[in-house]
Amino acid sequence: MTLSSLSLPLREQYAGLRGGTLSATALAEAAIEAYKTRGRHDHAYLTWNGEAALAFARATDALLGQGGDAGALMGIPVSIKDIYAVPGLPTYAGSSQRLPRRWEQPGPMMAALLAQLPSIMGKTHTVEFAFGGLGTNAHWGAPRNPWDRLAHRTPGGSSSGAGVSLVGGTASLALGTDTAGSVRIPASMTGVAGLKTTAGRWPKDQIVPLSSTLDTPGLLAHRVDDLAFAFDALDDALARRSTRVPAPPSLADLTFGIPERYFWDDCSPGIAEAVQYAIGQLEAAGARLVPLELPDTDEAYALFQQGGLAAAELAAFLNTELPDMIETLDPNVAARVRAADDMPAWEYVRRRSVIDRLYATAATRLADVDAMLTPTVTITPPTLESLKPEGAYSKANMQALRNTVIANFTGLCGLTLPVGKDSAGMPVGLQVLAEPWQDARLLAIGQAIEEQLGSGIEILGEPPAP
Amino acid sequence: MTLSSLSLPLREQYAGLRGGTLSATALAEAAIEAYKTRGRHDHAYLTWNGEAALAFARATDALLGQGGDAGALMGIPVSIKDIYAVPGLPTYAGSSQRLPRRWEQPGPMMAALLAQLPSIMGKTHTVEFAFGGLGTNAHWGAPRNPWDRLAHRTPGGSSSGAGVSLVGGTASLALGTDTAGSVRIPASMTGVAGLKTTAGRWPKDQIVPLSSTLDTPGLLAHRVDDLAFAFDALDDALARRSTRVPAPPSLADLTFGIPERYFWDDCSPGIAEAVQYAIGQLEAAGARLVPLELPDTDEAYALFQQGGLAAAELAAFLNTELPDMIETLDPNVAARVRAADDMPAWEYVRRRSVIDRLYATAATRLADVDAMLTPTVTITPPTLESLKPEGAYSKANMQALRNTVIANFTGLCGLTLPVGKDSAGMPVGLQVLAEPWQDARLLAIGQAIEEQLGSGIEILGEPPAP
Repeated sequence: MTLSSLSLPLREQYAGLRGGTLSATALAEAAIEAYKTRGRHDHAYLTWNGEAALAFARATDALLGQGGDAGALMGIPVSIKDIYAVPGLPTYAGSSQRLPRRWEQPGPMMAALLAQLPSIMGKTHTVEFAFGGLGTNAHWGAPRNPWDRLAHRTPGGSSSGAGVSLVGGTASLALGTDTAGSVRIPASMTGVAGLKTTAGRWPKDQIVPLSSTLDTPGLLAHRVDDLAFAFDALDDALARRSTRVPAPPSLADLTFGIPERYFWDDCSPGIAEAVQYAIGQLEAAGARLVPLELPDTDEAYALFQQGGLAAAELAAFLNTELPDMIETLDPNVAARVRAADDMPAWEYVRRRSVIDRLYATAATRLADVDAMLTPTVTITPPTLESLKPEGAYSKANMQALRNTVIANFTGLCGLTLPVGKDSAGMPVGLQVLAEPWQDARLLAIGQAIEEQLGSGIEILGEPPAP
Repeated sequence: MTLSSLSLPLREQYAGLRGGTLSATALAEAAIEAYKTRGRHDHAYLTWNGEAALAFARATDALLGQGGDAGALMGIPVSIKDIYAVPGLPTYAGSSQRLPRRWEQPGPMMAALLAQLPSIMGKTHTVEFAFGGLGTNAHWGAPRNPWDRLAHRTPGGSSSGAGVSLVGGTASLALGTDTAGSVRIPASMTGVAGLKTTAGRWPKDQIVPLSSTLDTPGLLAHRVDDLAFAFDALDDALARRSTRVPAPPSLADLTFGIPERYFWDDCSPGIAEAVQYAIGQLEAAGARLVPLELPDTDEAYALFQQGGLAAAELAAFLNTELPDMIETLDPNVAARVRAADDMPAWEYVRRRSVIDRLYATAATRLADVDAMLTPTVTITPPTLESLKPEGAYSKANMQALRNTVIANFTGLCGLTLPVGKDSAGMPVGLQVLAEPWQDARLLAIGQAIEEQLGSGIEILGEPPAP
């Protein structure tokens, strides 16, 4: 059953756990039940931790019952993208082999989470070394996008199991990472909300690196309000200059920048329409819309088309730390890692300097607006079948990432929230982008949008039964 | 005449300019006189600006006479390494051609200096694109080290004219840059004091880049006390978290870390002895000495021997901004830039990650001491003749840089001050290294050392007449 207690707002779960109307045990049991009924079919998890989480939840309840409170996420069922090191659980990072044991020592992000005693339901699938936007994986298969009952559509990636774990009812909060869109794309494609934090805000130690420059930890949940709740629970411990999410502003006080070009190119049927309809609703509710082009968009996209930084940075990591794994890479990953061998060092330096420059100017680009609104992803989640022809994967992967990567290459923070369905009946996301370090304010703006449009669960309803 | 008014302490010049016992005009005239008597022989300047500086000094005096005060460096004769953009003066960066005019627009460092109305005496020679530690230049020749009357010895580099301009009496303060030792080596080899700032403390915009990662602006002057004076004059405008130089501590309150290995290897005759004698004097004056090895030294040096980051970063700059200049590079520079073409991007990423790690841990390495003391340079300034045999330049260049580069690769700040002469009669420098961002405290420690040992002018006396 999908719309279980796990899909309640986190604030309600928080209150229920402390008020005695909900228990960590009941949440874990509901997650296990969901895993039994549709979890295996959805294929969200590489490592399912249900029974251990249930035992942990029982102990958590005993503490809660005695007034113990380890933090806002205590007792909440959480899924973890399998590139975070989690004590006691293997890390594969989407590869064919368990990584060395030091990739099971938690970093600061995991430590901040675990100290609050959530129920860790398991580790979700990822594209191998997080290097891809669709969610495919030659070693482990792709999780199913739960919104298509018949065809096996991609769930988005690289945090490919994160959104599916939420929709499938096995977690209420999912940890992902976003290097070019890897939180926002799976969130958009599976109909949940996702937050890409400002690069550098939250530490990424002990998260298997794709791009040492651009990786960012991120969160997925049913609602922006859930993201805001979890952000407040984690940011204090992680950010040097932590800021609590302020009260949602009134839409009448907000100005949104709307691009006229690039972000709308080649949309699958129904995507542009759903996003424009949502934007129209915001305008009707009093928000001011102004045209806004990011002048660096073309330069950032050109850099992305050339391959960006990730291939060379992943190659450096693999050559240094895991040289034996290069031979067994997923062909879609291997092709790009090998291509990096032919890139001279000075070309990497050049690209890095372009990104440094884009970062340095990004803050000024949004000076006249509160946030920028675009479609999150311009293509409907493709079927696995459609990716088989030569060149089809590359083309779809580039298109999936083109709207999200702009934020990574210019240093912005961003979120996505579901606003409707496309002509194929698949979820459509609205991307909200804000200046660097404005993560807390971005969440408040996202909450204001969500209050007006309704949450994803209200807009999309239940996914079809498997 | 070398020991002119220009070699007075900057604090005395400051007071004299305001008290009427000294004038900017007199200082500029003395600089011009020194340029006539030995400046051409010393060959410190690529662009001499004497007459314009004199006219400027006269106007400065008129302002001073009316109580005008634009800042602590007003009226002080300053020389500028020819990789800083200075309005009205060409920039060659040691290359064979004048760079495009946008390299004559001042950056923040130059703007902070110029706003105080110093007398800019000219632009001093540099190794081409600052890529070398000895001070040679195939296009323009090397400045002469003024401490050898007969042989043409290298002045140290890459800020090859900076120290020579001070000793030659044409400037009281010299601006240089330090990527692997390019302030400290010429300061040590010419018998003056030099400050390498913490990377990131002072902006380097509009300084022709060698290494976008490791370049740091720096200062040279006759005394540490002069450096402290100039630092206080500039740091407020340049550093985000500016700190004034505190009062010099008592040596009895200081603990110095002394390495037993690496930094003493292969010293030319008399160098280790001079430095050890100076350290002994500090101990006799009450300073506590403790053995201290930097555990990362070998890793940093290995990285340096492999070529570090600079070759790839310089190649990126040249390929992107000045592609026509690659053909005409000084052979000693060209060889290393060309070698960078063969370095794959991932190898650069690997090196960068090593340096990032060294930076992250550097702060802890000196936790138990106030500063670390080493010889600044282990070789006596070689004659140009000795560098001619195949391989001789590379070998001497590596040895010149080996003690200084450790600070650049681990994120430390550092200074050098003259403490004696080696067996060849050439100046010997004591290197003082401190934790990142401790620049102001480092200068105060340097002042305490200088008060005990005497200033360079007191220790070394006058250089021989040309």
